[in-house]
Amino acid sequence: MKSSLLFADIEKIRSLNPLVHNITNYVVMNNTANALLALGASPVMAHAAEEVKEMVSFSSALVINIGTLSHKWIEAMGIAMEKAKSLNKPIVFDPVGAGATMLRNDTCAFLFGKATPTIIRGNGSEIMALANVAIKTKGVDSSASSDSALSAAKELATALKCVVVISGETDYITNGKEVLTVKNGNPMMTHVTGMGCTATALCGAFSGVNSNAMEAAHHAMITMGICGEIAADKSQGPGSLQVNFIDALYNITSEDIEKRLKQ
Amino acid sequence: MKSSLLFADIEKIRSLNPLVHNITNYVVMNNTANALLALGASPVMAHAAEEVKEMVSFSSALVINIGTLSHKWIEAMGIAMEKAKSLNKPIVFDPVGAGATMLRNDTCAFLFGKATPTIIRGNGSEIMALANVAIKTKGVDSSASSDSALSAAKELATALKCVVVISGETDYITNGKEVLTVKNGNPMMTHVTGMGCTATALCGAFSGVNSNAMEAAHHAMITMGICGEIAADKSQGPGSLQVNFIDALYNITSEDIEKRLKQ
Amino acid sequence: MKSSLLFADIEKIRSLNPLVHNITNYVVMNNTANALLALGASPVMAHAAEEVKEMVSFSSALVINIGTLSHKWIEAMGIAMEKAKSLNKPIVFDPVGAGATMLRNDTCAFLFGKATPTIIRGNGSEIMALANVAIKTKGVDSSASSDSALSAAKELATALKCVVVISGETDYITNGKEVLTVKNGNPMMTHVTGMGCTATALCGAFSGVNSNAMEAAHHAMITMGICGEIAADKSQGPGSLQVNFIDALYNITSEDIEKRLKQ
Repeated sequence: MKSSLLFADIEKIRSLNPLVHNITNYVVMNNTANALLALGASPVMAHAAEEVKEMVSFSSALVINIGTLSHKWIEAMGIAMEKAKSLNKPIVFDPVGAGATMLRNDTCAFLFGKATPTIIRGNGSEIMALANVAIKTKGVDSSASSDSALSAAKELATALKCVVVISGETDYITNGKEVLTVKNGNPMMTHVTGMGCTATALCGAFSGVNSNAMEAAHHAMITMGICGEIAADKSQGPGSLQVNFIDALYNITSEDIEKRLKQ
Repeated sequence: MKSSLLFADIEKIRSLNPLVHNITNYVVMNNTANALLALGASPVMAHAAEEVKEMVSFSSALVINIGTLSHKWIEAMGIAMEKAKSLNKPIVFDPVGAGATMLRNDTCAFLFGKATPTIIRGNGSEIMALANVAIKTKGVDSSASSDSALSAAKELATALKCVVVISGETDYITNGKEVLTVKNGNPMMTHVTGMGCTATALCGAFSGVNSNAMEAAHHAMITMGICGEIAADKSQGPGSLQVNFIDALYNITSEDIEKRLKQ
Repeated sequence: MKSSLLFADIEKIRSLNPLVHNITNYVVMNNTANALLALGASPVMAHAAEEVKEMVSFSSALVINIGTLSHKWIEAMGIAMEKAKSLNKPIVFDPVGAGATMLRNDTCAFLFGKATPTIIRGNGSEIMALANVAIKTKGVDSSASSDSALSAAKELATALKCVVVISGETDYITNGKEVLTVKNGNPMMTHVTGMGCTATALCGAFSGVNSNAMEAAHHAMITMGICGEIAADKSQGPGSLQVNFIDALYNITSEDIEKRLKQ
């Protein structure tokens, strides 16, 4: 990848301030709103069934995150996803805790019946769980054993015709055929709540300015990783990391990217 | 304005710790609670219809913020506002996203039917949208074109007999006749989520110790602006700004105010 | 107390990463999740009645906090507490605002009918209010006057056969017979929202690795106090205190404990 392509997207976010509509969990709302603002995007959080269609209609991307579910929210997520689909707007989906409870699996199946996400981002176990749910739901015969998160991600991407991101020490981004990797990041990031959810929100910001979903997801994950490294270099622990990470998103330059990019 | 009047209010907040009851949005609850605590006030967040009357009854001010709405919350906001009105307690209202969706406009109209706020604080576009809603609702003939936020604010303040604050590079505070301004602040503040909501919450704290609504709103906006400047001087980005802003609220002195006040 | 016992628990938390299921209030979710992660535990927040049983079943401890109540949440809290009881998992309870409204008192009575907490942590006035509620509910004749928080805590602990913690300048931990104290901490902590809720969450983490509830609560309160002191030494106000506190939880050593412990 040319780092200049990534920085061009960041400059677009900073100049166009794409509106990113988030229906996300209570724990991370503040973090993800701040991350989007620091990067240059405009976050809006709204979850009332009565207003999500309007919000989607003037947003550049929709981010759905199932971290803290309840019935009303699931209903609103479905309405928002259907509207985004009808308007051809990118949908980024975060299956927080998929596989942990029936409610989460059922919610994923329900929502994928409304619209297929453009990008799905989760950790390895969430993606494996989701592959099982989504592939079963689609009636697709799963011949692959999905014994690894990457093979599950590829299967899921192929079955849904979307881009799947696995976050981890190495991030993987796949459309079922190609696989891109990101090796940036710092282990201290796993001690800050909502870093995964923030990655998902940034996928929303990038997909609001770049219609190539592989590129948008790849750029978001590199930005996360590099800003995490910049922040970790200055931090004594996860408290200061969170603060410095937001500052890094605000200040990231093309030089930072060129110097630090590891793929 | 004499800066000594403002600092006298801050000293009252620090010694009396007025209880400010907030029914606010999920994104900013933590920030606004911390801002109130840092300044010396006591925040309480409670939204159950069953308990908001009791909470209002021992609070010094009620803050209503419509950032993340749902039916139950709207109902509770109405009950709380009616109770505050019956007890003659100040109500500070933040019309987050007014004009963006029907639900938000309808909610403002519904709530203004329950009680007129003492102070309304929003950005220019929210105040313009709200002026349309409120004036239509009141059946007042709007002859002014409301082509600027300030004229909309004046109309709104006159129609509702309340104080209206527009946040921006210059803040305007008006009761329909007088207009006060605040020129303090720093552009980096717009990259932190909930700074507007925090300004609204501070209006609550000041109105809890000063029954002159123009003064209370003016003092709150100056405090926001000056603390934002103090914080920006030490910050590398919006992450550290948020932290330093809370510290500044905790430490603000009469000297800071005298030195920095721009009106 | 031997500080080595406390540090052994911290090492267990760091190596075993006990999953702590929180049904807590909106204001502090982010803080408590970050505090748990910084110390080494794994937080999960989930409040849907449909999934709380599953979450409890693979958690090491359940934390219930009544800071921002509504019907659905109360129902889910009851289901989760019943499940935790049936599985013999520790339940830590935070009666935020007990005594302030009928809803909060009624909720405590309702939930204690489902299961008795293992540890209850509150401030003095909450514990006094709760003692009245719980003792009345249990039909126990309250001969003691409960004129002080400590006597109320002892009565409550005896009536419920649980451990009760009072947070304050000095913390008290009692099972009705023994009383342990913690004198660590810093007054600036009272200007950060959710510090009490964080103490409750840490009681959850410690009770996830130590089945002796007195020890678990005592260790949690010492950890809070010492990390608060370490953070205050580096902080200019409550904004930086919150950041440094999280860093301190991440970095706390046996030397820190030995050097600072005050009982």
